[in-house]
Order: sequence, then C-alpha cells, then structure tokens
Amino acid sequence: MNPIRVVAFGGGHGLSASLRALRRCVPELDLDITAVVTVADDGGSSGRLRAERGGLPPGDLRQALVALAGDHPGTRRSAALFQHRFEAGLAHVAGGAADSLAGHAVGNLLICGLMELLGDPVAALDHAGAMLGAVGRVLPMSRQPVGIEARVRGADPAHPDEVRAVRGQHQVAVTSGRVESLRLTPAAPPACAEVLTAVRDADWLIFGPGSWYTSVLPHLLVPGLADAIVSSSARRLVTLNLVAEKETLGLSLADHLDTLGRYLPELKVDLVLADSTAVGDPEAVGRAAESLGARLVLAPVAVVDGTPRHDPAALGAALVPVLGADR
Amino acid sequence: MNPIRVVAFGGGHGLSASLRALRRCVPELDLDITAVVTVADDGGSSGRLRAERGGLPPGDLRQALVALAGDHPGTRRSAALFQHRFEAGLAHVAGGAADSLAGHAVGNLLICGLMELLGDPVAALDHAGAMLGAVGRVLPMSRQPVGIEARVRGADPAHPDEVRAVRGQHQVAVTSGRVESLRLTPAAPPACAEVLTAVRDADWLIFGPGSWYTSVLPHLLVPGLADAIVSSSARRLVTLNLVAEKETLGLSLADHLDTLGRYLPELKVDLVLADSTAVGDPEAVGRAAESLGARLVLAPVAVVDGTPRHDPAALGAALVPVLGADR
Repeated sequence: MNPIRVVAFGGGHGLSASLRALRRCVPELDLDITAVVTVADDGGSSGRLRAERGGLPPGDLRQALVALAGDHPGTRRSAALFQHRFEAGLAHVAGGAADSLAGHAVGNLLICGLMELLGDPVAALDHAGAMLGAVGRVLPMSRQPVGIEARVRGADPAHPDEVRAVRGQHQVAVTSGRVESLRLTPAAPPACAEVLTAVRDADWLIFGPGSWYTSVLPHLLVPGLADAIVSSSARRLVTLNLVAEKETLGLSLADHLDTLGRYLPELKVDLVLADSTAVGDPEAVGRAAESLGARLVLAPVAVVDGTPRHDPAALGAALVPVLGADR
Repeated sequence: MNPIRVVAFGGGHGLSASLRALRRCVPELDLDITAVVTVADDGGSSGRLRAERGGLPPGDLRQALVALAGDHPGTRRSAALFQHRFEAGLAHVAGGAADSLAGHAVGNLLICGLMELLGDPVAALDHAGAMLGAVGRVLPMSRQPVGIEARVRGADPAHPDEVRAVRGQHQVAVTSGRVESLRLTPAAPPACAEVLTAVRDADWLIFGPGSWYTSVLPHLLVPGLADAIVSSSARRLVTLNLVAEKETLGLSLADHLDTLGRYLPELKVDLVLADSTAVGDPEAVGRAAESLGARLVLAPVAVVDGTPRHDPAALGAALVPVLGADR
C-alpha cells in the first residue's frame, strides 16, 4: 500500500506541534510528511538574517526540520545544535567588538549558508533535512521571502476605533488591536513548485495549529498555492488552536474557522479537530465547521499541565484514526 | 591485522595536505587516522570568534575535518557547507546594520556552536566529524586556546638587527624578520588527554608539512605532549615543506629539521620525506636528518603545475610503502 501523503501547513511553534504529532503516528501509519512553512518572519535572528543577507528567513524552516529530525543519538544531537542559540560572548562583557553571533540559532546560520552555497532554498532544506535524518520534507511556501501587512483596528490603544496599517509579521503577531484584513507583500508571490506537486498528490492537507494570521492564513493568500489547495483531491483537516494569541485576541475558535472561508471562499474542509476542553462552545464551533463542509472532532489534545500547548502524543493519537480512515 | 595507527600533527593547509594524502593510502593500507591541530590561531574568522566567544579557534580544526570528510555526495556537500564563507550581505551594500556573518566560514560557526552546546571541544569535534562522515578523528593539541610569541630579529625592517617580541600566531606567521625563539602563552598548556592516548598507541607520528613555527613546532612546546611524543614507541616521520614561508624565510630545509631538535632535544625521527626537486641540497638535508636519527626519503610529492603545494595523490603514493613497511 502506498504511504499516506500528508502536507502540513503552518509557521513556527504550531507547525512544530503538528509535525511532532504526525511523526508519532508513524509506528501505526505509513506517512509521507511534507511541511510547508510561511516565509514572512521578520523578527529576531531570522529577521536580522533576512535583512542582512536577503534570503528566506530561516527560523521557522529550522523549527520544522528539527520537529522531523531522526530519533537517533547523532541526529538528536544535530537537532540540538540546530536549536542552540548563541548567547552574548566575551566581547559583550568586555565592551569590545560587536558580538556578531549573539541571538542567532546555529541552525539559522547553517540554513542561510546552505541557501547561499547551493543557490536554492529547496536544495538547502533537503540537505539540512538529510543532516538531521528528517522523517519528512520541509518546504517554503514560496522561494521568495514575503511581507505581511494587516489593517488593524485599535493598533494604537489611544485610538481604539482607528484602522491603520501594521506592517511585518512580527508587528502583526504582537498587535493589541483587531486585525480587519490581511495581505501579503508582494500580493501574489510565486508558490514553491515542489509544494504545488506535494499538494496535488496529497491524501491529506492539514492547516494549523498556529498563529492564525501570521502562520496559517498566509498560505491561502499565495494565489498559486490557494488554487492547488482548492483543486487537490486530498481531504482537508483544520487543527484549531487552544487559546487565542495576541494577534487573534477577541477571535473565537468559530471566528478562526470563518476567516478561512473569508480568505479562500472555495475552501472545503473535511474535518476540524479541537481540544475537548479548549473548544469552549462546541455547538458554535460545530456550526462554523459545517459552513466549511466539515465535521467537528473533539479529542483531548492539550498537554495536561494546563499550559496551552498541544501534546504531540495526544494529538498524534487523535490523528491516527482520522488519517488512517478508509485505508 | 590491526589498523596502522597514524597521528598527524599540524595546523592549517599543511595538515590538510597530509590528511588528504593519508586518506589516499586507505585503499591499500588499513589506517586509523588522528589529526592533532594547533589551537593558537588568532587571525581572520577564527581570531574573531576566539576573541568574541573565548573557545578554541575553529578554523584549523574545520580544515582538518573537511580534509577527512567522507567521499559521498551528502558528506561532500556538508564539507562544502563547512567551507562556505559568508560574503558581505545586503546590509553592507546598503550601509545599514553591521553584517554579522561576513567573513565567517559556516563550519567555524558550527564548531563554535557545538563546543558551546556540548561544553567540550573533543565531543564537539567528534560530532562534527560524524556529520561529515570523517574517515578519522580530529583533536586539538590542548583543550585551551594558546598564544604564540616569538623573539624576532628585524621584525621592524627599519631596525634589522633589533630583536623584539612578536605576539600572536598571525603576526608571527607574517613577520618579515627572522624568528630567533618561540614560546607558547601560557608556557605549559595542558595537553588534550585523548591526544596523549593516541600518541601512546600510535604506530606512526607524522610532523608537517606546514608553517613551521606556527603549526608544527607548537606541538613540541606543550610539555605533556612533548613527553608523550618522546616516549611513544611509534615511528616518527617528518614531511618537509616545499618552500620557505614568510615566517621561515632564510631557513633552509636542513634548518627546519634542526629546529625540531632545538625545541625538543630528545626527539628521534625515523624518516624525513622531502620532494625530490624542492629538497635543493639533498646532502645537507640528509645530514640534518641523520642528526635526528633519520633517513632521508626523496619522492616527487609536489603538484606538477609548479605551485608549492603537496599533491595528495603523490604524497599518498610516497607514504604507502613507508607506512606499510614491516607489516
């Protein structure tokens, strides 16, 4: 039997949780995992590298690679190296020369170097994946870095009714206002060709969890990718978040689902997966799911310590019967 | 039969040539290769990292690792990544923020990160070697970075007879004066324990080629290492340089050999290998070899294009009968 081809869309931590859950399914299901990562990050180490060197911001790509890293002592150690963040060095203490590495994750520098060396981000990510013994492939949604721009009501707390433009993924992610609309800059970046192939051939497309405006919706705003998603014969699953983040404050989980239809009206969804407890009002969420054509599935997928994080084992256990159905 | 255990001492390019030659011997001889690398570099990317972050300068360690990297498409690509040097990025062009990566080799950053992550340079180098599928082990002569200081006659061309101190490997390497004496700072750094074990168990110890004062002699100035070299039952081979470098201008090949006995009087050598053409005066070199207890072996080991570089294949071909004798 062919493997079940799964394409997971997202950005940073949410996509990592999804990937860590998917790999937990592997003992029971033969999965072929492709992660598709937004390339809009402009904060922190990634933002500095993007500004200084002009390539794709590497941080979210790194997180996805590490989430798929092989489970052997050597690859675990390489994954730890990718994640290692340089702290301020001696020069900082001595007040000497600028500390060039402080704040950068080693994996970000390594991915940057590979992209420059090989001249192609997909070849670079494939090699980085091989270095990590990754159990799947990580691809950028576009070979070109993009910007995110939002119209935000009350971005300035002193003017709660004023709508203004907020530019940059980082600024949108931390805005205290309410996002009214979202767009990419450039508005129509080219989709990564390898992503389009993976979407066309997929059995499942998985959206979320993740920062909704800055990690999930951007994929639907890439015209070529949106077309591929809509026309793929794959089934589609949305994994909802556990809590609202700063950028989605005031947005219910039902509202989260509504935004998907708003930004890609042709999108049909088969299943919506939500945490049994975090779902809040299951009937409202169920109705929002139905309006996308989806059935709501509730399962305990959060960690039990009360922090709003998906538990990879629990999320994986919830995914096995879903992804393995009709096989 | 046990493998032939070879320990090669050096620094940068010369040690790389030696290692590339040794691995060429592997189809014919079963070699267990250990490279021992000086840790005195204070120039370029390594010097900046050492000054900023305080660990071992990684550049020469990286060169040795790459020289031993596995000969498969994946490990060759990883080796190219280790060697990739970041050029000045966009910020430099735009006159914006300082370009933090320009001039650094990716492998230097990776080795730095591993040393910080694992807290031990030997563990870091073993992991980096595994990432490269290295056909041997790379060790630092000491776990502590050291300085090189020389008394140099005519360091200032305006005062050709004046002897003054020149500090730092880089400054010693490029001095236009004549090195009269050499020391490490601190004077007695601890030898790396794994190196002592490798020297004790070795069948062959190989010194040079390389920058004599800054890459070859420093090993003899580490007291614990000098003791191990003298008391090892291994045979000892010196591979001579092809031309004098800036730091050894005015020094004949015979003088090169004399310096070994000067800095480590108890050193006995079995064989001295010199290029048939570059040797110049074979009788003088033969006498200097004899005074160390060694026989001079001449072979064509330089590249044929006339540049003063050892040809790995030719040097390997010369080493096979030497290392394989009496087996």
